[in-house]
This record gives sequence, C-alpha cells and structure tokens, in this order.
Amino acid sequence: MELIRTVGELRTRLDRERAAGKRIGMVGTSGGMHQGHQSLIRRAADENDLTALYWGGAPADLSAWQSGSTFAYDRDAGHDWPLAEAAGCEILFAPEGAVMFPREPMTKVSLPSFSSAFPQLEDPAHLDLVALAMCKLWNMFGPCRNYFGEKDWQQLVMFVRLAEDLEYPVEVIGCPTVREVDGVAVSSRNAQLTSAQRAAAPVLFRALGAARSAAEAGATKAADVERVFVETVGDVAAVQYVAVVDGPTMTPFDELEGSVRILASIALGDTRLVDNVGVDVTAA
Amino acid sequence: MELIRTVGELRTRLDRERAAGKRIGMVGTSGGMHQGHQSLIRRAADENDLTALYWGGAPADLSAWQSGSTFAYDRDAGHDWPLAEAAGCEILFAPEGAVMFPREPMTKVSLPSFSSAFPQLEDPAHLDLVALAMCKLWNMFGPCRNYFGEKDWQQLVMFVRLAEDLEYPVEVIGCPTVREVDGVAVSSRNAQLTSAQRAAAPVLFRALGAARSAAEAGATKAADVERVFVETVGDVAAVQYVAVVDGPTMTPFDELEGSVRILASIALGDTRLVDNVGVDVTAA
Repeated sequence: MELIRTVGELRTRLDRERAAGKRIGMVGTSGGMHQGHQSLIRRAADENDLTALYWGGAPADLSAWQSGSTFAYDRDAGHDWPLAEAAGCEILFAPEGAVMFPREPMTKVSLPSFSSAFPQLEDPAHLDLVALAMCKLWNMFGPCRNYFGEKDWQQLVMFVRLAEDLEYPVEVIGCPTVREVDGVAVSSRNAQLTSAQRAAAPVLFRALGAARSAAEAGATKAADVERVFVETVGDVAAVQYVAVVDGPTMTPFDELEGSVRILASIALGDTRLVDNVGVDVTAA
Repeated sequence: MELIRTVGELRTRLDRERAAGKRIGMVGTSGGMHQGHQSLIRRAADENDLTALYWGGAPADLSAWQSGSTFAYDRDAGHDWPLAEAAGCEILFAPEGAVMFPREPMTKVSLPSFSSAFPQLEDPAHLDLVALAMCKLWNMFGPCRNYFGEKDWQQLVMFVRLAEDLEYPVEVIGCPTVREVDGVAVSSRNAQLTSAQRAAAPVLFRALGAARSAAEAGATKAADVERVFVETVGDVAAVQYVAVVDGPTMTPFDELEGSVRILASIALGDTRLVDNVGVDVTAA
C-alpha cells in the first residue's frame, strides 16, 4: 500500500493510471476503520483496477476549518492502515488538515432538500460542509467510482444528486449496510454500548424490518408504517425519529409510492443508533 | 475545427489528448463572438496544445433552466464558428440546452461575497447559477487552463476563488480587456449605440484612467478616487456606479491598499457600458 500526502502526488499518480486505461475505485473515511469501511474497500477493489482511500475527514464547522481537529490522526494509523490494506487498498491518501482545508472557503455548496431533511439530527450547516468537502475530494481524485454505505442514507443520496447536478465524472455507488449476525449495523458507536444496551440494540433493525413488512403487506400510509416501527421498539429503547421518505430525494411521504426508504434512530442510554431499510412500493 | 455535441464525446476526446500529455486551453462563450472572445481563444491556442471552446450559455434563472432560451443558437453558428476557428479553436463543444441543463438542480453553488457585490447591477441569483454552470463545465472539460477577460471582473475573480476553494484541476487565467483604438472595451453592446453615443463612449475608460491616475498620484481614500471618476464623466453620460474594491476579493475599500480595482458603469441612452482598471497601491 502506497502512502500519499499531497494533492499533487495524488493527481500525478492517478492520472498516470487512468492514462493507461485503469479504472479507479475510491472510498473515503474519517478514521475509526471497521468492517463497514472494509466492505466498501473490498467492493472497490473487486470492481476496479486500482483502489484508493481518502483517510482524513470533514471539518465539523467553519471555525474548525483550519484546526484539522476532526481529522483522523496518525495515532490511529496503526489501527486503520493495516485494515485498509487487508481489504485491498492500494493507495492511501492521508493529507494533513492544512492540505485539505488550507483556508476558510468563500464558496458555499448546499443541497437544502437533503441537508435539511433531519435538522434535529444532522446539522444542515455541517452537511453543507460535507458536500463542499466532497466536491474537493472528487476534484482531487478525478474520474472514479466512489463507494458509500447505505447506512448513511442521507449523505449517500445527497452525494448522488451532487455528482449528477454538477456533472462530476464520478459514479456514486451505494453499498448494502454491513451487519452483525444479530442484524445490528456495524458502527464505531456500537463500542460505546454497555453489554445490556448491546443486547437491546437489535430492536432497531427488527423494528425497521416490521415496518418494511407492513409496507410490503399493503400499508399505504406513512403514519401507519411509522406506527408499526414505534410499536415494535416498544419500551426497549427511546425512539429518536422514524421517517418514511422517497429514497432518492428524501421527500417525506404521506402515501407510499415507488422507491421508499424507512429511516430511524433510537437512543440506548447516551448512544444514538441509526439505520434504514428500503422497500419498493408499486402503485396499485 | 471539430464539432462535439455531447458530454461523453467531449470527455473521451480530451482524456485521450491529456493521456498523450497534451495541455488543454479552454474558453467559454454564450455566443455573439467578437474580438474579445477571439483574443482569449488566441491566447489559449498560444499557451496550450489543444484549444477547446464551450459555445452555449448559462440559464438566466431557474425557470429558464430547461428552456435553453439563453443559449447561443445554431442560427448564430454561421457568424460565430468561423471566427472561433480563425482564432485557433480546434474543438467546439456546442451542446443542446437539454444536454447542459437536463433538469433543475437541487444543488446550490454560491460565493456571496462576489455574487452580491453589486446586487443592483448583477442579480446575485443569476451569478450563483453562473457559478454552478462553471462547476459543470469544468467537470465536463476536465483539467485545463480556462481563459477569461478582465472586463467581467466580478465573474473572473469569482471563478478564481471557486476553482481554489473546490480544488478544481483548472487554472483560471484573466486576460487584458480588448479595446477599440479609442479605448472603448470591445462588447456586443457597443453595436446598440447610436453614432452620437458611440462618440461619447470613450469617456468611461478615460474617466477610469483619471481615477487610476489619482490613486497612483497618492489619493488614499476610495471616495476621492470615485469623485475623480464622476467629475471626469461629467454630463457626457449617466454614471450607474463606480466602486473601488480589493481586486481579488471584491471587498470595498475605504482606504486603498494593495491590489486595487476600480469598476464602473455608465449609461448612454438605454445601453449600459461596464469597464474596470487595476492599480497596485503600496501601503506607505
């Protein structure tokens, strides 16, 4: 695995590969490498000639722009880098924070219908910065296939639309959420759970499955599907939210139709778990 | 000169050239080709291995997004295309409006400190769309040098910052304004002037020159420099605005310092002429 620290080196290296007809698969992570990231790297390696990883991060807000405080640090390298290499990563792009964010931008990039979809859960201003950082990354990496987990659905569909709207020569590919054997989505947050909380955690995916089954069985109203979710969670955890939306656009449904996504979050103690499932509903 | 109509063809063609080590020079125009555009094409041809022209346009507003109404039409091709070829254009990218703007975007790109610099003269919402369209063009053309005239200073510096903020692999190059022998900046609007108005038109560049001379001679206050401009125009034309700003950022000055740009507009009848000049002021 080759370590690259600067944008210039990255471009030269990837341009050379593309000039030779090679296809680039790309994955980004802000550190805390786990099986979810590894599955994305593995898929990128399977479907492309060269696999490159961005190992850095996005700034939490504008005041953090220059601090690099949200970056994966080299102290995590000992954990993350071998896992990346084992999954098939060939080029690791790990810039310093000052390389990625040299000064506060005057440009704003925003997809309000995505970034403001759940303002109580994800700060829209943060998601705007994520969109801007993604523009930068795509401009650094150049034409490629970029792999994302479906677990972060809001970001995934935002990136799909961003790439389409701005005509990036990038194919955004969503990949199924990686789960533990009991259905819990793999996440760095799972390590924060007590063993009792961890034992309760499967209720999230189970309740999402019940809600999906209700939609498959003919429930047509979003409110009914959401009620099934809430009733299945019961008093096992605190429901933070459940929303039934049009998958590609995040538009909330009253009546389900087409490509439906059910997104939910529960709290177990101080830890919030998020997950989502999809279901196709054909209009009668 | 090779005519290209689709994004896919354009990418394939330019990628092949870049893979062979060729540098691409690029110019964009919304039609009405004149000596100003030709000088940009000529410079692009001089400094690069292959010269490509975007011949299309930007939508006036979101409602016009799909109409293609602001595009250069093929009916202008008979006038514009031979002039482009004569100046050294080798690849003419002339997409249909529906290719460039297939549907209304959900993404907003905005540089408020540039687009809102003169809201009474340039609609900020329009300039935001121009910035978004430029992102698309750069993603279509790929790594290149993109040449712009200094006459549209507000757009030029906005594009410089947009490319830097988003790390586009594009070098934005400003080129001196092309002028008639009497100093009038070449513009398609000049054809709208009556002969009496045309005879009065040089007052704009003359008054900008007087304002610049005042700054060079030691005037330190923006208000004083602006007054020189207004007094030099006198009653020859109606002053629409004059502004003394920091060139790269468009920040208005009280006290001049560094890279100063003096921007002005006058009206002759119904026709508004715009122009600008630069002067470096070293702090005492």
